[in-house]
Amino acid sequence: MELIYTGKTKNVYRLEDGNYLLKFKDDVTGEDGVFDPGSNVVGLTIEGAGKAELRLTKYFFEILKEQGIPTHYVEADIDNVTMTVKPATLFGKGLEIICRYRAVGSFFRRYGDYCEEGQPLDAFVEVTLKDDAREDPPITEDALDMLGILTHEEYAVLKELTRKIALIIKTELAKKDIELYDIKFEFGRVGPDRQITLIDEISGGNMRAFKDGRHIQPLELEKLILD
Amino acid sequence: MELIYTGKTKNVYRLEDGNYLLKFKDDVTGEDGVFDPGSNVVGLTIEGAGKAELRLTKYFFEILKEQGIPTHYVEADIDNVTMTVKPATLFGKGLEIICRYRAVGSFFRRYGDYCEEGQPLDAFVEVTLKDDAREDPPITEDALDMLGILTHEEYAVLKELTRKIALIIKTELAKKDIELYDIKFEFGRVGPDRQITLIDEISGGNMRAFKDGRHIQPLELEKLILD
Repeated sequence: MELIYTGKTKNVYRLEDGNYLLKFKDDVTGEDGVFDPGSNVVGLTIEGAGKAELRLTKYFFEILKEQGIPTHYVEADIDNVTMTVKPATLFGKGLEIICRYRAVGSFFRRYGDYCEEGQPLDAFVEVTLKDDAREDPPITEDALDMLGILTHEEYAVLKELTRKIALIIKTELAKKDIELYDIKFEFGRVGPDRQITLIDEISGGNMRAFKDGRHIQPLELEKLILD
Repeated sequence: MELIYTGKTKNVYRLEDGNYLLKFKDDVTGEDGVFDPGSNVVGLTIEGAGKAELRLTKYFFEILKEQGIPTHYVEADIDNVTMTVKPATLFGKGLEIICRYRAVGSFFRRYGDYCEEGQPLDAFVEVTLKDDAREDPPITEDALDMLGILTHEEYAVLKELTRKIALIIKTELAKKDIELYDIKFEFGRVGPDRQITLIDEISGGNMRAFKDGRHIQPLELEKLILD
């Protein structure tokens, strides 16, 4: 089993059958010891965070599978904190697709002149490049097309799929009286027909969730959803 | 005549007939004494810059008028360094619409992982909010629509008009063997039918122009075009 990538929150190994193994770490993104899913740097290590993120990811990916959403998920091994996934090709060097229900985070930092902080947004979708050196710059549909990263047709599929998945997660959270403010996804192309497919993980580290007006930390989200 | 706005490169006065008078200053945007049309701060003052910018603006606006492009231009008084314009309503608090023929400036800073510096771009259009405090953040068509700044239909008109005007300017510059790399415009709504109309100015301060691989400074551009 060959280590092929060391990520901020996961390591990636190639399996002999062509699939990949994701090993979840206890590192979460944030700055100055405060968790921030929008951040690009690992700000703190929380014991058990990797296992919590994996349990939640397994839970959500299995719900998505039932609902016919294409994902890279094959199986999860909670004890070993690993997830087996199908091989996927990234769009360019990787994109983050964000779906927003509230004007917070980088959206509010950019457009605060035109909205109130926390104001409801109608499942607004935006894309950023995964590029740490350039601080994950936002990119338009036209630029994605022009730079050969995504065609307009693929963008439409991605946007629709993003809103569909975000709504499923939002609905799951609402069952526990938790409100989803925003969530970010990664997609890739999977299989011989290069189907646009959800990859990476879905956990506290990918979203901002609030309960009774209070921000839910990643580990707490797992407890609230799964216990 | 009432001063109603003090801008970085122009002051704006209200005239009694309902039109406005723009008084061009000798200040140009840039940092550390280097002219940069993409900058948000006044970096240097060049004697005669205001008059040069006005002469070029008058020249381009009159060409645009001949070609049936709607602009706010009424007349220019070169001696007094003023231009009379029709009243216009901004989109939101003002937008900058950029048309790019080469990957330079903020485009290259953001997307340098996907392009070479100076690589040709196919009249790529993007929009930023005029918001100094937030460093003129880029904004997508979807966000413009959602925040009530521009509808999708208006965006289509603006994009088309931007490409048309940029091509006219590019063609004018090419007659003097000058290559237009990028140019930024402002638009507003003018008249009882609220027609989408080019406003502000078109001069060296709005564009990056090169001749024989050398960047042309604003004052030099005026000389090369008008002399």
